Amino acid sequence: MADSPNCDLKSLSPLQLFERVTEQGEKVRALKAGKAPKDEIDAAVRMLLSLKLSYKTTTGQDYQAGLPPKDLVLINNGTTKEEDEDLVDPWNVQTSNAKGVDYDKLIVRFGSSKIDTDLINRIERATGQKPHHFLRRGIFFSHRDMDQVLDAYEKKKPFYLYTGRGPSSQAMHVGHLIPFLFTKWLQEVFDVPLVIQLTDDEKYLWKDMTIEKAYEYAKENAKDIIACGFDVNKTFIFSDLDYLGTSAGFYKNIVKVQKHVTFNQVKGIFGFTDSDCIGKISFPAIQAAPSFSSSFPQIFNGKENIQCLIPCAIDQDPYFRMTRDVAPRIGQPKPALLHSVFFPALQGAQTKMSASDPNSSIFLTDTPKQIKTKINKHAFSGGRDTIEEHRKYGGNCDVDVSIMYLTFFLEDDDRLEQLKQAYTSGELLTGELKKVLIETMQPLVAAHQERRKQVTDEIVKQFMTPRKLAFEF
Amino acid sequence: MADSPNCDLKSLSPLQLFERVTEQGEKVRALKAGKAPKDEIDAAVRMLLSLKLSYKTTTGQDYQAGLPPKDLVLINNGTTKEEDEDLVDPWNVQTSNAKGVDYDKLIVRFGSSKIDTDLINRIERATGQKPHHFLRRGIFFSHRDMDQVLDAYEKKKPFYLYTGRGPSSQAMHVGHLIPFLFTKWLQEVFDVPLVIQLTDDEKYLWKDMTIEKAYEYAKENAKDIIACGFDVNKTFIFSDLDYLGTSAGFYKNIVKVQKHVTFNQVKGIFGFTDSDCIGKISFPAIQAAPSFSSSFPQIFNGKENIQCLIPCAIDQDPYFRMTRDVAPRIGQPKPALLHSVFFPALQGAQTKMSASDPNSSIFLTDTPKQIKTKINKHAFSGGRDTIEEHRKYGGNCDVDVSIMYLTFFLEDDDRLEQLKQAYTSGELLTGELKKVLIETMQPLVAAHQERRKQVTDEIVKQFMTPRKLAFEF
Repeated sequence: MADSPNCDLKSLSPLQLFERVTEQGEKVRALKAGKAPKDEIDAAVRMLLSLKLSYKTTTGQDYQAGLPPKDLVLINNGTTKEEDEDLVDPWNVQTSNAKGVDYDKLIVRFGSSKIDTDLINRIERATGQKPHHFLRRGIFFSHRDMDQVLDAYEKKKPFYLYTGRGPSSQAMHVGHLIPFLFTKWLQEVFDVPLVIQLTDDEKYLWKDMTIEKAYEYAKENAKDIIACGFDVNKTFIFSDLDYLGTSAGFYKNIVKVQKHVTFNQVKGIFGFTDSDCIGKISFPAIQAAPSFSSSFPQIFNGKENIQCLIPCAIDQDPYFRMTRDVAPRIGQPKPALLHSVFFPALQGAQTKMSASDPNSSIFLTDTPKQIKTKINKHAFSGGRDTIEEHRKYGGNCDVDVSIMYLTFFLEDDDRLEQLKQAYTSGELLTGELKKVLIETMQPLVAAHQERRKQVTDEIVKQFMTPRKLAFEF
Repeated sequence: MADSPNCDLKSLSPLQLFERVTEQGEKVRALKAGKAPKDEIDAAVRMLLSLKLSYKTTTGQDYQAGLPPKDLVLINNGTTKEEDEDLVDPWNVQTSNAKGVDYDKLIVRFGSSKIDTDLINRIERATGQKPHHFLRRGIFFSHRDMDQVLDAYEKKKPFYLYTGRGPSSQAMHVGHLIPFLFTKWLQEVFDVPLVIQLTDDEKYLWKDMTIEKAYEYAKENAKDIIACGFDVNKTFIFSDLDYLGTSAGFYKNIVKVQKHVTFNQVKGIFGFTDSDCIGKISFPAIQAAPSFSSSFPQIFNGKENIQCLIPCAIDQDPYFRMTRDVAPRIGQPKPALLHSVFFPALQGAQTKMSASDPNSSIFLTDTPKQIKTKINKHAFSGGRDTIEEHRKYGGNCDVDVSIMYLTFFLEDDDRLEQLKQAYTSGELLTGELKKVLIETMQPLVAAHQERRKQVTDEIVKQFMTPRKLAFEF
């Protein structure tokens, strides 16, 4: 980094500026501690003041040591006050808007690209398949470098898919399936290898949980993932606690990432503090490493340059922005991304669902009766207070959770459109709409349970054994 | 940690106080940022001021954010000014005293115990062997819990040895052999398993070096270690980059340690800053984990409670103080330690030797001629300026590097004593003393080279293959 503070400060992000100020502050302290010549200290202090001024000009706030700007999760884009901003990071999703997070603003703040009609059409042309309704309905709404993946695919260059899950409990809810359902579709239409990371080490580090418990959850969650219908010949599922101890390539990539990311950076990106354990601080490298094909020598024959595509919920993006920043510095291609919106809680779209609150969603273990009761009792309604008012003014589809859930799970476009129109016009009552949702979710969950029963420990073991897949590299 | 700042502040170390102040500062910032009630903020600020006062009283310095006290490496023990203190940590050893580091002070500062005549006699009784001259001559001078290891040994309870090396270059010097020569003796007299860690990942993280190079140095260094005469049936040598990817138990212990150590702690112990990469920050856990027998399931049959004894130079102690702090919290026994003094550079005892300066010591690859030239040209002499003065006043054994080297490598106690007396009296001239050293080192290095030639890649592979050793657990 150049010594002159003014060279290109205007082009720096608030976080980069924050890091410059912090580094300069450390330099000043080191000079003073080392009893450096007064000239040198004075010059360093002047630069520090100048950097602090730039920081204030850019962010509108005074620099505070240890308190990085929230730019990577919460950049104020100039059109609203900070209080109105949504909070989105791997551990928190908060919005005050009943319609949910403002995803268009998130694209601007995160610096990703919108998945527009052109891109969807291009995916259709490339694969010869009708785009998944998650694409058609904007559930996967944002991307990074998907064009490049398609460029390469059209030139017959291989790529692979990487997604994952933090196994925080045995119970998964229907929202947890979204990335897996979409990934399964991607794998089928592109016919590519898939790796699925279960971050049991992350859960051990973050939660009050033993290593054994975290690993047990990983294997239980693997059953629900496998029950989505993945092909064992094309899919490798791994627990970090397990795979790290069986793969030379994986640890080498982890340590490469760890060499190229500073504490200042993870502090800025993830909000870590000095009181956090060193396991949390270094964990982002473990989620980054599967983005590089050399982490899976058994699949890719040791090849380092296979392009990776990561379908995930947008809250995981900070990990992969970091990964994309590091990739060229360790001679690896940047992973491409497809981001989904969040799955709303039954109670409304203001927060992401929590696996620890059984009423916050429909769980994969729920009985038909539980599903019926939960939807009737907890699904937030956009309907009116009385039947008369509802018939007169109609319901509000934008905040109605039944409509939101049907958008995720009812595949029939015409039927969904009909329901929306009928609800908006007041023709369809809330109870009737909920009945449709119940009748959609009950067989879906029952079928999942049926498939899950078939997933034996032996099958889980097959998926989780490091091995060659049905592809040549 | 209790909220009252005065409960037990007097019993806290400067580092612990530093952490309390830092945590309290973070709490105040968080309260302010979260717009907490004024009462609450005021109370937190009062506590912060009170903590800062305690810090100043204890350390004599104002608290400075980000600048932890040097207590763990540099506690001022009240008898000298800080400028006179020796600096000792894993990356730096500095003293202004030509006799070298003041080890008695170091014992007080580090809180370890002196290896006294009683302990040496006890080792002799337990093993039925004459104590190694490194023990008799105070080269291994400090310990932690060696009594407990002997208690257990006398009750036929097993223990194992763990030592290591950071493979920063192909060239090892004779000083690098000290821990290995002593460990070999310990292994022989106690007949116990030994694990040797080669921290190639550490060298990759700290140096401008590729992963491949670091691993290559690890294997080269393994040859020199094996050439000390270790028994392949009782010894496991491992490179981190290699073994981490082949052992489920090792990574699990690493992540357990990482969960129980904060950035504040490693900042205090190792002096890391916010600009350090996250790999460095989490590395101490990787050096800690081999202290737990479950890191080697193939050797210890998965048993978690086998006592570990670590012979190492005293500069490595910070890693193991941290390990001993964590051990009970993860249900593991604390490793015991035996600490050696530093091996002096040819130029004098003020600094630890550097493998990157070929003239700073005798290297294991040196020819007899190189050894002769180096000793004659560079070995710092405690002799007088002229022969006449030397004869009249005698030489100074306390600062003479030839005498120091002979203390390490001349096994004959009587001969060493004779030489010292003759040099002190002026009877023995510097040139004559150097000749004795040359004649001691030349055959020693030549014999090492001869043994090293026998160490084929195949033998290295045997030592580095995870396997059961010749012990039942």
